[in-house]
Amino acid sequence: MSSDRAIQTIMETIGADAKAAAAILANARTTQKNDALIAAATAIRAKKAEILQANVKDLDIARGRDLSQAMIDRLLLDDDRIEAIASGLEAIATLPDPVGDTIASWDRPNGLNISRIRVPLGVIGIIYESRPNVTADAGALCLKSGNASILRGGSESANSSRAIHLCLVEGLKAAGLPETAIQLIPTQDRAAVGALLGMAGIVDIIVPRGGKGLIERVQNDSKVPVMAHLDGICHTYVDKAADPQKAVDIVVNAKMRRTGICGATETLLIDHNVVADLLPAIADALIEKGCALRGDKTAQQQHNAISPATEEDWDTEYLDAILSIRTVAGVDDAIAHIARHGSHHTDAIITEDAEAAAKFLNQVDSAIVVHNASTQYADGGEFGMGAEIGISTGKMHARGPVGLEQLTSYKYVVRGNGQTRP
Amino acid sequence: MSSDRAIQTIMETIGADAKAAAAILANARTTQKNDALIAAATAIRAKKAEILQANVKDLDIARGRDLSQAMIDRLLLDDDRIEAIASGLEAIATLPDPVGDTIASWDRPNGLNISRIRVPLGVIGIIYESRPNVTADAGALCLKSGNASILRGGSESANSSRAIHLCLVEGLKAAGLPETAIQLIPTQDRAAVGALLGMAGIVDIIVPRGGKGLIERVQNDSKVPVMAHLDGICHTYVDKAADPQKAVDIVVNAKMRRTGICGATETLLIDHNVVADLLPAIADALIEKGCALRGDKTAQQQHNAISPATEEDWDTEYLDAILSIRTVAGVDDAIAHIARHGSHHTDAIITEDAEAAAKFLNQVDSAIVVHNASTQYADGGEFGMGAEIGISTGKMHARGPVGLEQLTSYKYVVRGNGQTRP
Repeated sequence: MSSDRAIQTIMETIGADAKAAAAILANARTTQKNDALIAAATAIRAKKAEILQANVKDLDIARGRDLSQAMIDRLLLDDDRIEAIASGLEAIATLPDPVGDTIASWDRPNGLNISRIRVPLGVIGIIYESRPNVTADAGALCLKSGNASILRGGSESANSSRAIHLCLVEGLKAAGLPETAIQLIPTQDRAAVGALLGMAGIVDIIVPRGGKGLIERVQNDSKVPVMAHLDGICHTYVDKAADPQKAVDIVVNAKMRRTGICGATETLLIDHNVVADLLPAIADALIEKGCALRGDKTAQQQHNAISPATEEDWDTEYLDAILSIRTVAGVDDAIAHIARHGSHHTDAIITEDAEAAAKFLNQVDSAIVVHNASTQYADGGEFGMGAEIGISTGKMHARGPVGLEQLTSYKYVVRGNGQTRP
Repeated sequence: MSSDRAIQTIMETIGADAKAAAAILANARTTQKNDALIAAATAIRAKKAEILQANVKDLDIARGRDLSQAMIDRLLLDDDRIEAIASGLEAIATLPDPVGDTIASWDRPNGLNISRIRVPLGVIGIIYESRPNVTADAGALCLKSGNASILRGGSESANSSRAIHLCLVEGLKAAGLPETAIQLIPTQDRAAVGALLGMAGIVDIIVPRGGKGLIERVQNDSKVPVMAHLDGICHTYVDKAADPQKAVDIVVNAKMRRTGICGATETLLIDHNVVADLLPAIADALIEKGCALRGDKTAQQQHNAISPATEEDWDTEYLDAILSIRTVAGVDDAIAHIARHGSHHTDAIITEDAEAAAKFLNQVDSAIVVHNASTQYADGGEFGMGAEIGISTGKMHARGPVGLEQLTSYKYVVRGNGQTRP
């Protein structure tokens, strides 16, 4: 049997086990799912030494492979990060269970009662890169929403993910749920990813979490529906009616609070009527925080630290302390720039003009549109959704933060007393 | 320029025009969309002669091609059917407009207000077979839900569809909406379908309407998300606590009201405790309506008109006056049969036992589960949704009848007064 054939067989078994587990999870009580999460958190704390040891192995390999410092930092676990994993599991246990919720219910003139009831999606495949904590987060969110999960972590974090996964399995066992409710693919062979993406009819949805390359590959190759976000080219538009202090505070926060997250602003659009008044102060505040600035001609004239932007800058997600700045003729021009260069993620307007705000919020076609606040609020936790598995930039199914509710589907329950259709 | 290259160019223009139209439709007023629908209905009535003439052309070609009588019947237009198309457009004008609805709205402790607002999906591609009325139905549902549509009808109905499409364009013009809001692909070349399925980023969703072959081809080849229903292998389970009269009435209706629709029951499951009491009367009533019966050994023993069923019968969507009958050991066995052989479309239980009903409704993983009523109620109109573009058997995005609301997505609108994220 060739290696690819062997992996195909392994994946078929994993798929069948996941499907069987999903049928049980769909009807599991909330308390049982919560018990599993709490027991898993206890196991994470109890096995801290083993997890750290596994992480040291991963770090040794990573250093041998010359991975970047940023990659190594994402990979690193310590006491605090392990405690965060455990308390994250407990936090998910406290979230409301969406499964079984009646979304709507109505009566028909013929006496039929129709309800729309929330049900799990079924089996969710998660493909992620170096952060080992995703193993716990993703598995737990799927479990709480009644879904079986098949996890495929990055090769860099294989040992850490395996150690964390063992704790999740311990939680499942303690609660009397199938161990196969959360499975970790045991091989790093890439054929396993290919097999997972081909499992239409077994796997209901694939959620890739990682860089652009990973997500594009998954979207291209998958026969299973994919819920993903591609770029986060987010804009903040400073309107001519912007409050100057809000403009400075929000732009600095939107760009610099954390530069590596998808909700970070990458391009500042500013109305030409106020560019001379407002840009110098905004630029000073950004430079003080260590941000490099690239702008069009008009922007460059306002501050000598602003270097020239090229066409490419408007289409670039820096994920770094770099901001592109473009002068626009007003709110319509800002909307047009975002339509051409944005990625339908999160875009903000700063203005005291209610009409301009309404126009921007209506016409910008992004998952999240913001008035007078930072684009960095693009986050399930900040939205009060508790936890998220990612931000969807697609329009199908879920858009924006993907929390427990977004990991569900629904079914229609029709109750009659003998009705036949005329 | 090769023919494929030329078609690619045509499709790129159609896609760009649709995207531009979608941006305008997303913000069109409800009255404007309704005006377009009502004007299109007027045009359909005014151009009845031209439409019938175009239809005669299609019918002549179809007869020359030796199409089946059923196909020719689907293709045929007459005065009544044209009036039904016109009044269908007017009915869609009376439905509530989902766009702009506030689905949810809440305040965060930091003062941010977050709303989830319904928005159109964008550009919808519809690929359908012989029925020319789909041109009007699908275009109208997309328009009312604020979406631009690209329609690709079957070659058999090309002339009829073109004549109907001209009336829709007339409606759009009369209401001041872009003519490209509803486009009909002008060529029957199959390369156009390939191009449409490859337009990820331009087309937001593909809805195929037609036979299994079409739908499977679209699902396999599409780079754009597909919303479709595959089989409707629907079951009616007669429980041991079934009311005998309800059992007869519902089974006969579920199978025989119309045999060619996806919600028709294909398999009768019956509890072995009541098979001797109930099956003879059910079989007699079905036979009287002209239904052929195929059953397992136990079923055959109850009625000499029941011929043997093979394993294949349990997996067959007859769409015809044929019913397969299987004896089961009770509700759990019925649920297990449906899990193995069903298609997650619509399944019903007939019982006076509330506990058995609850178990069935909870555990059967289908878009629609029914208690004491006919599976033929699986229909957007019967659900009170007004009109539907189809029934989705997938779990992503929409499940069950796909009406106006299901052709939308949502966006989050975040309103602040200067908030920056800590």
